[in-house]
Amino acid sequence: MTFDQFNFVLSMMATIAFAVTGVLAVAERRVDFFSAVVLGIITAIGGGTIRDLILDVPVFWATHLSYVQFAILASVITFIAQSIFSKPQILKLFLYVDALGIALFGVAGAFKALELGFGWPLGPLMLGVITAIGGGLMRDVLAGRKTLLMSDEVYTLPVFTGCFLMLVIVKLFPNFVSEGILIGTATTLVLRSAAIYWSWKVPDWFITKSN
Amino acid sequence: MTFDQFNFVLSMMATIAFAVTGVLAVAERRVDFFSAVVLGIITAIGGGTIRDLILDVPVFWATHLSYVQFAILASVITFIAQSIFSKPQILKLFLYVDALGIALFGVAGAFKALELGFGWPLGPLMLGVITAIGGGLMRDVLAGRKTLLMSDEVYTLPVFTGCFLMLVIVKLFPNFVSEGILIGTATTLVLRSAAIYWSWKVPDWFITKSN
Amino acid sequence: MTFDQFNFVLSMMATIAFAVTGVLAVAERRVDFFSAVVLGIITAIGGGTIRDLILDVPVFWATHLSYVQFAILASVITFIAQSIFSKPQILKLFLYVDALGIALFGVAGAFKALELGFGWPLGPLMLGVITAIGGGLMRDVLAGRKTLLMSDEVYTLPVFTGCFLMLVIVKLFPNFVSEGILIGTATTLVLRSAAIYWSWKVPDWFITKSN
Repeated sequence: MTFDQFNFVLSMMATIAFAVTGVLAVAERRVDFFSAVVLGIITAIGGGTIRDLILDVPVFWATHLSYVQFAILASVITFIAQSIFSKPQILKLFLYVDALGIALFGVAGAFKALELGFGWPLGPLMLGVITAIGGGLMRDVLAGRKTLLMSDEVYTLPVFTGCFLMLVIVKLFPNFVSEGILIGTATTLVLRSAAIYWSWKVPDWFITKSN
Repeated sequence: MTFDQFNFVLSMMATIAFAVTGVLAVAERRVDFFSAVVLGIITAIGGGTIRDLILDVPVFWATHLSYVQFAILASVITFIAQSIFSKPQILKLFLYVDALGIALFGVAGAFKALELGFGWPLGPLMLGVITAIGGGLMRDVLAGRKTLLMSDEVYTLPVFTGCFLMLVIVKLFPNFVSEGILIGTATTLVLRSAAIYWSWKVPDWFITKSN
Repeated sequence: MTFDQFNFVLSMMATIAFAVTGVLAVAERRVDFFSAVVLGIITAIGGGTIRDLILDVPVFWATHLSYVQFAILASVITFIAQSIFSKPQILKLFLYVDALGIALFGVAGAFKALELGFGWPLGPLMLGVITAIGGGLMRDVLAGRKTLLMSDEVYTLPVFTGCFLMLVIVKLFPNFVSEGILIGTATTLVLRSAAIYWSWKVPDWFITKSN
């Protein structure tokens, strides 16, 4: 398996994970098949779409329809098999796949902005975060849920850390681009997975004071 | 009346219908005139704006201000005459005009993407749906209502079916573009109108299981 | 201090004010540091970003990162010192700085659209309003609050009036561009400040009838 193939497999896994979370977000409501699939697609490709609009490049899924195809496929299967997908163990599993998703999409988004010379150094960082969480935010808003920004899950921090690390490595060691991407992605994945596994909550001093 | 004039009249009717639903969405709340008009405009042109951003073409209303003008006019009239527009029969009537709106905007949006060679075949289909329901989604989100994706109205399906049919016809019979557009639009309109008339609800097996 | 420097200082003040309102919007909730900062940034640059996407020009903060830097700085400080920022007098003060923000951003947004020849005359007016309130709308939606369109604050009207006045002056007296911008900005600022100071509420006849 070449690096490109490996990358493709990972991207599709991320897409699938995001689409699944989109459909599961409405599994408890009376939402019809088409709306659920639309929500799955938006969750999967929403973040990257906002990134590409801001970068003013063609949206990634226009030329790589496999993103949309896998998003649809995953949404349909999740819809049909929601009783299975809603099982606590499966839900837990998909939290980790979603962690892989934000890791891959975040670092890839930041790298794309970096390559295009977009607003170094804050631009790539911001677009990395937007790519990773944009679709999830749209899912939450459209589903009428508390958005992931409002939860006390440790979610944005791992994305930020991974993107930051990748950018530092790639800038300091221009010959180690693949390594930088790999390390950044792994960092986000490990941090987020740890947050899921040990149910990390954001510490109190790190939170706006509630009365 | 030429085909272009006919098309213009229909487009303006769709714009008016969307703007009216935008203002009526807040008729029960204490919302001021300007906010209501802003909401009417966003509902009317929001979907097509997202489409044009994704297609990376100039937004349609920049060169065709009549869309904005009619949206404003319709919003103002709806605001002033809200006691009339809120009458059940009038509301019902506007459901059908809204059905015409999603039919026209959906198929036109899909066709625009098709002409630009955008992501065949899923791209045009997705942009058709986005054009038709994007403005309504923004209206619902800004008004703090349950979005139309979350309702059990048969709303997205007719759009999807009409766009799909148009795309199939235009691809299989390249000489029958107008016919394809007409049939696609009519299909969406008829399906959605039937859904309104007979109060179709999405069947239970087509819905995410609520507990 | 040259005009450009003066303009820069005002823009940064507006950016800071918007970022502060973004963080304060979640001061009462359990929201973590990163999410609060993300919300601050989105509030500060969201409106201008939508404007630039619609105008199809590079987003302003890609080449002027100081907007992002000040937004981050203001968000971080607000987060750390939220007990101070949440004091009624400070909150009141920031209402006025926010008023300056919508005045500067609204008129500047309208002027940018005017210069690019975008959809005269309604285009500049609409983009002025979008620039001024877009970030606030995104803040409210992501924070799950009633959006500012739904409140009975006199908020959109001052923006509209200031942009309108600027556009009229600049069109009628092409040699008085700076004066037009100044008068437009001042008008929005004064109107909005008056609305805050005297707690103007939208009059009842100007509001959709609530039952």
